[in-house]
Amino acid sequence: MNDAIQPATGRLGILSVGLGAVATTFITGTLMARKGLAKPVGSFTQFGKMRVGRGDAKRYLPVGEIVPMASLNDIVFGAWDVFKDNAYESAKFCKVLKDSDIEPVRTELEAIVPMKACFDADYAHNLMDARFGRVPDPVWAMADDTRWNWAQNLRSDIRRFKKENHCDRVIVFWIASTEAYTPRNEMVHGTLAGFEAAMKADDRKHLAPSMIYAYAALMEGCPFIMGAPNVCVDIPAMFELSAKQGLPIVGKDFKSGQTMMKTAMAPIFATRLLGVEGWFSTNILGNRDGQVIEHPDNFETKRISKASSIEWILDAEQQPDLYSGISHEIKINYYKPRGDNKESWDNIDIFGWMGYPMQIKVNFLCRDSILAAPICLDLALFTDLALRAGLCGVQEWLSFYVKKPMTYDDGAPVHDLFQQFAMLKNEIRLLGGYEADQELD
Amino acid sequence: MNDAIQPATGRLGILSVGLGAVATTFITGTLMARKGLAKPVGSFTQFGKMRVGRGDAKRYLPVGEIVPMASLNDIVFGAWDVFKDNAYESAKFCKVLKDSDIEPVRTELEAIVPMKACFDADYAHNLMDARFGRVPDPVWAMADDTRWNWAQNLRSDIRRFKKENHCDRVIVFWIASTEAYTPRNEMVHGTLAGFEAAMKADDRKHLAPSMIYAYAALMEGCPFIMGAPNVCVDIPAMFELSAKQGLPIVGKDFKSGQTMMKTAMAPIFATRLLGVEGWFSTNILGNRDGQVIEHPDNFETKRISKASSIEWILDAEQQPDLYSGISHEIKINYYKPRGDNKESWDNIDIFGWMGYPMQIKVNFLCRDSILAAPICLDLALFTDLALRAGLCGVQEWLSFYVKKPMTYDDGAPVHDLFQQFAMLKNEIRLLGGYEADQELD
Amino acid sequence: MNDAIQPATGRLGILSVGLGAVATTFITGTLMARKGLAKPVGSFTQFGKMRVGRGDAKRYLPVGEIVPMASLNDIVFGAWDVFKDNAYESAKFCKVLKDSDIEPVRTELEAIVPMKACFDADYAHNLMDARFGRVPDPVWAMADDTRWNWAQNLRSDIRRFKKENHCDRVIVFWIASTEAYTPRNEMVHGTLAGFEAAMKADDRKHLAPSMIYAYAALMEGCPFIMGAPNVCVDIPAMFELSAKQGLPIVGKDFKSGQTMMKTAMAPIFATRLLGVEGWFSTNILGNRDGQVIEHPDNFETKRISKASSIEWILDAEQQPDLYSGISHEIKINYYKPRGDNKESWDNIDIFGWMGYPMQIKVNFLCRDSILAAPICLDLALFTDLALRAGLCGVQEWLSFYVKKPMTYDDGAPVHDLFQQFAMLKNEIRLLGGYEADQELD
Amino acid sequence: MNDAIQPATGRLGILSVGLGAVATTFITGTLMARKGLAKPVGSFTQFGKMRVGRGDAKRYLPVGEIVPMASLNDIVFGAWDVFKDNAYESAKFCKVLKDSDIEPVRTELEAIVPMKACFDADYAHNLMDARFGRVPDPVWAMADDTRWNWAQNLRSDIRRFKKENHCDRVIVFWIASTEAYTPRNEMVHGTLAGFEAAMKADDRKHLAPSMIYAYAALMEGCPFIMGAPNVCVDIPAMFELSAKQGLPIVGKDFKSGQTMMKTAMAPIFATRLLGVEGWFSTNILGNRDGQVIEHPDNFETKRISKASSIEWILDAEQQPDLYSGISHEIKINYYKPRGDNKESWDNIDIFGWMGYPMQIKVNFLCRDSILAAPICLDLALFTDLALRAGLCGVQEWLSFYVKKPMTYDDGAPVHDLFQQFAMLKNEIRLLGGYEADQELD
Repeated sequence: MNDAIQPATGRLGILSVGLGAVATTFITGTLMARKGLAKPVGSFTQFGKMRVGRGDAKRYLPVGEIVPMASLNDIVFGAWDVFKDNAYESAKFCKVLKDSDIEPVRTELEAIVPMKACFDADYAHNLMDARFGRVPDPVWAMADDTRWNWAQNLRSDIRRFKKENHCDRVIVFWIASTEAYTPRNEMVHGTLAGFEAAMKADDRKHLAPSMIYAYAALMEGCPFIMGAPNVCVDIPAMFELSAKQGLPIVGKDFKSGQTMMKTAMAPIFATRLLGVEGWFSTNILGNRDGQVIEHPDNFETKRISKASSIEWILDAEQQPDLYSGISHEIKINYYKPRGDNKESWDNIDIFGWMGYPMQIKVNFLCRDSILAAPICLDLALFTDLALRAGLCGVQEWLSFYVKKPMTYDDGAPVHDLFQQFAMLKNEIRLLGGYEADQELD
Repeated sequence: MNDAIQPATGRLGILSVGLGAVATTFITGTLMARKGLAKPVGSFTQFGKMRVGRGDAKRYLPVGEIVPMASLNDIVFGAWDVFKDNAYESAKFCKVLKDSDIEPVRTELEAIVPMKACFDADYAHNLMDARFGRVPDPVWAMADDTRWNWAQNLRSDIRRFKKENHCDRVIVFWIASTEAYTPRNEMVHGTLAGFEAAMKADDRKHLAPSMIYAYAALMEGCPFIMGAPNVCVDIPAMFELSAKQGLPIVGKDFKSGQTMMKTAMAPIFATRLLGVEGWFSTNILGNRDGQVIEHPDNFETKRISKASSIEWILDAEQQPDLYSGISHEIKINYYKPRGDNKESWDNIDIFGWMGYPMQIKVNFLCRDSILAAPICLDLALFTDLALRAGLCGVQEWLSFYVKKPMTYDDGAPVHDLFQQFAMLKNEIRLLGGYEADQELD
Repeated sequence: MNDAIQPATGRLGILSVGLGAVATTFITGTLMARKGLAKPVGSFTQFGKMRVGRGDAKRYLPVGEIVPMASLNDIVFGAWDVFKDNAYESAKFCKVLKDSDIEPVRTELEAIVPMKACFDADYAHNLMDARFGRVPDPVWAMADDTRWNWAQNLRSDIRRFKKENHCDRVIVFWIASTEAYTPRNEMVHGTLAGFEAAMKADDRKHLAPSMIYAYAALMEGCPFIMGAPNVCVDIPAMFELSAKQGLPIVGKDFKSGQTMMKTAMAPIFATRLLGVEGWFSTNILGNRDGQVIEHPDNFETKRISKASSIEWILDAEQQPDLYSGISHEIKINYYKPRGDNKESWDNIDIFGWMGYPMQIKVNFLCRDSILAAPICLDLALFTDLALRAGLCGVQEWLSFYVKKPMTYDDGAPVHDLFQQFAMLKNEIRLLGGYEADQELD
Repeated sequence: MNDAIQPATGRLGILSVGLGAVATTFITGTLMARKGLAKPVGSFTQFGKMRVGRGDAKRYLPVGEIVPMASLNDIVFGAWDVFKDNAYESAKFCKVLKDSDIEPVRTELEAIVPMKACFDADYAHNLMDARFGRVPDPVWAMADDTRWNWAQNLRSDIRRFKKENHCDRVIVFWIASTEAYTPRNEMVHGTLAGFEAAMKADDRKHLAPSMIYAYAALMEGCPFIMGAPNVCVDIPAMFELSAKQGLPIVGKDFKSGQTMMKTAMAPIFATRLLGVEGWFSTNILGNRDGQVIEHPDNFETKRISKASSIEWILDAEQQPDLYSGISHEIKINYYKPRGDNKESWDNIDIFGWMGYPMQIKVNFLCRDSILAAPICLDLALFTDLALRAGLCGVQEWLSFYVKKPMTYDDGAPVHDLFQQFAMLKNEIRLLGGYEADQELD
C-alpha cells in the first residue's frame, strides 16, 4: 500500500444533513451490518474485489486490501433535520425497513437526535404542505437569521459533535431533499470573497441553505458530499475554498435508480452502434423526495441533473447518423401509493440495420433508499480515504456514484457507468501503489 | 498498419448456408448500402470508431483506417437452401423488409439462386411441418447420399462458385436454423481421422449436416462461420482441421437480441454489487427459426447456448452472498403473430442493501433479422481480415458477436458484452500495429 | 322495424372539420371498404350482431336488420382544414396507412379538397409551431372576421356542398384538434339569444371556433358531432338550438384508446370488489393531436375530459372502504418517435383480502387513428339514424363512443363501457320496435 | 325474502381439503374480520350491493338484505392435509400474511389441526420433491388402503367433526393442489354404480383422491366445492349422486388472477369488435401450487381449465373475420423467487380498422392466496345458501368464481366475467323473491 496515505485510525464522524428515508436506511443498515445482522449489499467498499497488476502480476483483491479503509466499527453518526424525530422514530415513520430490521439497533438509533436545521421554505416548496403528508410541529430549525450567522451556528454544531464523540475526522454529507434551482451568479458564486460578502449581506436569493452547510463544513476542515442535485458546492467559490483548505468535495445527486440503468444501457447501443431515436423516461414515487420534486422550481434542479446523461454517451457529433436529434424526455411524478418504492418506466426507441425501428421498455420497481444507502456508505468511506490521501477539490473518480459529476471549468463529465467504474478502479490502484492501467476511451 | 496482413484486394465471396430471413436481410442491406440507399446501422466495421494509443498518442479512428478491410463493393453472394426461391423471392416471402427497401436491388437479388442443400429431416424436425407454414415443393436438396459424398458435392459447389465469380477468397457462413442437438462423441468428433472415417461410414447419428459444410469449406481453404448454436465446428476434429489448413473458424450463435441485452445488463449488477435472486426470460417469435426451436430436440441446442451466459458474469464463487443459487429460467415459444419480430420479456429479481428485493422487467420488441444482419456483415469482414492476417483456429476475439463463444479445451469463455468489446478492440489494435492496451478483468 | 323512422334513402353528406390523420383514415377506410378492399374492423354498425327479444323470442341480428341504416355507398365526404392538402395528400403525409391501402382510392381522395377553415391561433397554440412539424403555407383559412360573419360563411359552405353533391342529409363532424379550454360563461353560453349576441359582438374570448361550426350546422338543419373534448356544443345555448331545430347533437371526445381500456377495466375491480389505491396513466404520442395537447391550455381541456371516468365507476360513496381517496394521475406527453402510434402505460394499484396490495401494469401500443376511425363511422351513421328517427338534443345512448358524455343539467353520465353498451343496444331495440329490456345498474 | 329458504341459523362447518397458503389465508382473514381487525376485501357476500327491482321499484341493497346469509361468527373450520402443521404453523410457513395479521388469531389457528389426508403420490408428482421445498416428515396421511376404505374413513372424519363442533351444516371444500389429469372413463365415471364398483375394486388409475373426498362429502349430506381444476366432481357419477342426495356441487378452479383478467378483457374486444390475432399468456409462480403444476401431468389438468376461456367469448363462428384462428398460448412456470406472488404477463395482438395491428401487454403482479381467499368465502357462503334453498346439482350461477364452470352434458359454459356476474345477481334476485330481470346475451 501507499505509505503517503494516513492510516484509518480513530473515529470517523458522519454528519448527515437530513435524517429521512435515505439517511436512516443508511445508518440502520450500517449499524446492523457491524453487528453481523444484515449485509451491506451494493457497497463496493464492503463487497468489491478488483484486479491490480497486469499480465502475470494480475491479482484480484478486496478493496480494503489495496487501500486502507475506515472500519464500520469506527463510524459515529450525527444529523441535522427540520423534523425533530430521532433516527429510530424517523426510520419507523419512513416504512422503508421492516420492524425486524430496525429493532435490534433501536438504542443506537434513538441516540441519534437531530440538531436544528437551517431552513428556508423558499427552497423546499412542498415540504411543508399538508396535502402531501405530515408537517413537523414544530419545524425543528434555527431561528430565522442571516446566512452568515447560520454558518457560525453550524460551525459550532460541528465542533461540538466532533468533540463530544471523540472523532478524529468528520464528514458532512447532504442526504436531504432537492432544493429549488439556484441560477449561478458570478458575483456571489464566482469567488470565495464574493460568497462571503453575500453571506454577510444575507443574500437569500443566491445562497441556498445547502451552501451554508458546505461552507461551514469546509471551514471546519470537513469534506463535504452533496447527495442531491443542488447547485451547492458546484460553484467556483467552493472549488476555491476546498483547494484552500485542502479538502475533498464530492457530488452530485446519487445515481441510484433510473439514471444508473440509463447510463448502463446507453453504452449497449453505443457499443453495438444501434441508433437511438428517442428515450422517454417516467418516474413515479411517493416519498418526501417526490413531494418536493413535484414543485416546478425543485423539479428544475432535478431535471437538469438527469437530462444530459445519455447525450454524453450517445455522441451525436461522432455518430450523426445514429444519435442526432434524440427525443429525450424525463418526467418525475409524485404518486402517493408508491411510497419509497420508486418506480421507473423507460421506453427506448432504437433503430438498426437499414434504419428499422425497435423498442425496449424497462420497468424498474426499485426502492429509492435501498439503492441509495450503499452509495452513502461508499461515498463516505472513499471521501475519508481521499481526505487521508491528501486529495483535495472535486473528486472526479467518484463520478461512478453520481448523476451529475462535477468538473472544473464545465469540463465534460464521464457518464458511462462502465467508464466511471474504470476511473474508480484506476484511482484505487494508484492510491494502493499500483499502476493505473485502464485507458479511458 | 501492419504490413504482415494481406491487402483486401480482389473479390470476396460469401457463401451462405441458408437463404431465409437473416441471410436475405443481410444481403439486401449490403446491396442497398453500396448503392447509398440504406445505412448498415449496427455494423462496427462500417460505423465503428475506436481509440488507439494511450495518453498523448491517443487518437480515435474508424476501424477501416486501423486495419485493411474488404470493401462492400467487392462482395459476391451465393447460397445453398432447401427452398429454391431466389434471394428476391425469399426476401419478399419473409416480410422483414418493406418492398421499397427491396425493389431497388431486385435484379441483384434475383441473380442469387440457391444451390441444392444437404438436408436431413432428423436435424430440423419442424421445418417441414405444414402446421407452421410453407413446405418447399420440392425440397431443394441433394440426393440422399452418404455424408462423404455430400462433402465432395459441396466442395465442388464451392470451387465452381469461386471460379464463376472470380473470387479471390470465399467464406462459408451458416445462416440457417438450429439443428437438433448432437451430443459429442469422442470417436467421431475427437480427431480429424475419426471424423473422416465416420463420414465414409455415413454415421448420420453423429454427423449433422452443418458439420459437412464446415468440413467442405475448410478443405477448400475457406474460413467457416457458425451463426446458429449447432455443435458443428465446436469439436476437436474441426479445431485440428482448421489448424492444419491455417484457417479461422468462428462461432457460435449470433448474440443479437435477448442474450445481448442480458450480457450487457448482468454487468450492471456485478459492477454495482447488487444481488440477483432470479432471472426469468421468455421469448416469443413466429419465424422459421421459432418453428424449428419449438421442437424439444432443437430447443435443447439453443437452451445450452443461452443458458450459461449470466452465470459467467455473476460469479457465485467470487460473490457467494450475491449470486449463489440464481433461479435462471429461459423459455422460447413459437407465437405466430410475432413473425420475424422476436420479442422478449425478462423479469429480473435483484436485491440490495440489507437484502431488500427489487424487480426489473425488460420488454424488448426487437426484429431478429435486423439485429442479426450487421453481425453477419461484421463477422464476414473480420473473418476475412483474420484470414488475410494468418490467424487460424478459433477466433476468440470475435466473441462479442456470439452467444456461446468457442474456446479450446472447454476454457472459460468471456460473456460480458463490454469485456468482449475490449477483446475485439485489443485485437484490432494489435492487427493495426498498435499496443493492445486494455487489460481484461 | 319501426315505421316512424324515415328510410335511409338518398345521399348522406359527412362534412368533417379537419382533414388530418383521423379524418383521412376514416374516409380512406370507408372508401376501401365499399370497394371490398378493406374491412371496417371495430365498427358496430358494420360488424355488430345483437340480441333482440327475450326468452323464446330471443334472436341475434345484425344491427342493419333491426334499424334502417344508411349504406356506405351513399356517403359523400367533404371537409374544412387549415392545411390545403387534399385527402390523398394528407393521408400520405400522416403515414397512418400503408401506400397499398391508399392508392386504390387515390382518385376519390384527391377529389376531397378542403374548404377554408375558421382559424383562431389562440385556440390551437402549438399547431403552428415549427418545432413540432410542418406549418401550413399558407394557412388555409377564412379572412380574420367577426364570429358572426364566419358563421354566415360556413352556412353558405354547407348549402353549397349539399347542393353540389345532391345530398339528402348532411352531418357536420368535428374531427380536429383539441381547442384551448373555454370556461363557461352564463351570459354567452346560457341561452341562444346570448350566444347570438356574443357572435355579433365578436366575443372571441368566449366563442371558440368549434362553436361557430356547430351553430352553422344546426342552423342549416345538420346534426353536429364533437369528436374532441372541446366545450363547443356542451352548453345550454346549443341544447336550446338543437331542440328548436329538432336536431341531434353528439359528443364528446372519442373514447378510443386508454380511456376505453380504463372504463372497461375499472368495472372488473368494481365487480370483484377489489380496492383501488391509485391509478397512474401516462400517454405518449407524436402526432398533431399530441403537439396541440402539449400546450397547457389545450391539455386542460383534455384532462377534464379524461379525469372523472373511473371515479364514476369506482364509487367512493357506495364503497368507501374500497374507493376513497384514489390517487388518479393522468399525463399526456408529446413524444415524436411515436408518431400516430399512441402508447399508454397504466399502473394500477389495487388491494384485496385484508388490504394486501397488488399491481397491474397495462402497456397499450395502439394506433390513434385506427381506433378512432370506426368510431367516426358508427357515430356518423347512428347520428343519421337519430335524425331520421326524430331524436333531438343530446344523444346519451351514444355515450359508448365518447370519453365525456354530455348530459343535461350536469346529470351523472354513464362511463362504464359495458353499461354504455347496454344503453346503446337498448336504444337500438326501441328504434327497431323491440322492448328495451336491459335494466341499467 | 323468499320464505322457502331455510334460515342461516346454527353453526356452519367448513372442512377444507388442504391447509396451505390459500386455505390459511382464507381462514385467518375470516377470523380477523370477525374480530374487526381486517376487512374481507374482494368478497361479494360481505361488500356487495346490487340492484333489485326495475324502474321506479329499483333499489340497491347489500346481498345479505336480499337473501339470508350465514354470519361469519357462525363458521367453524376444520381440515385434512399431508403436512401435519396446524393452521398457525402453516400460515407462518407460507409467508403470505405479515406476522401482525396472524398473531391476533393465533389461538384460534393453533386449534385447527389437520386430520390425516388421503394421499396418492401419483396424483401430485412434485409435491414431495425436495428440489422444490420442504417434504413433510412424516407424510400426514391415512394408511395406504383401498379407495373404498378411504371413503369410509373420510365419512367418519366428517361425522366426528360435525358432532364435536356442534355444526348444523358442513361444507367440504377442496382448497389443495391440482391433481394429475384423470381422463374420463365411461365405465368408472359414467354412473354412480360404476363409480362405487370401481372404489371397491380399488381402481387407482381412474379414481383420483379428490373424488373420494367428494363422494364421502355427498354421502354425508355435505355440499362439495372443487377449487382446483381436478376432474373430480365434474363427472356424471357425481351429478347423479348430488341429485340423489339433493346437494349442491360447485366448481371448478378458482378464477382468481390471469384468467379473471382475461375473461374481463376479452369482452372489451368483443364489444368494440376489435379483431384478435393472438394471445400469449405467461405465468410465473413460486409456491407449492406452482411446484405441482410444473409437472406435465398436473399442468395438463390446469391447461385444459384455462385454455378455452377466451374462445367462448371471442366467437369465431359469429365473427369469422375477427376471431378465426387466434394463436392462444398459455404457459405456467415455476419460478422460486416469486413465492406466493403469482405474476402474469399477457401479450395480446389485436387488430382494428382495415386490419391494422396493435398490441396490449398486461403485467399483473398479483398474490395468489389474497385473490383466492374472498372467492373461498363467497363460494362457501353461497353454497350454504344453495343448500338451504334446496338447489341441488351443478350450481351454474356460481360460474363467476371459477375458471372452468361445470355444465351438464358438456353444455356451453359462460366465461364472460360480466355475463357471469349477471347470472349471479339474477339468481340472488330470484332467491330473494325478486324478478330475475337481466337477460343474458
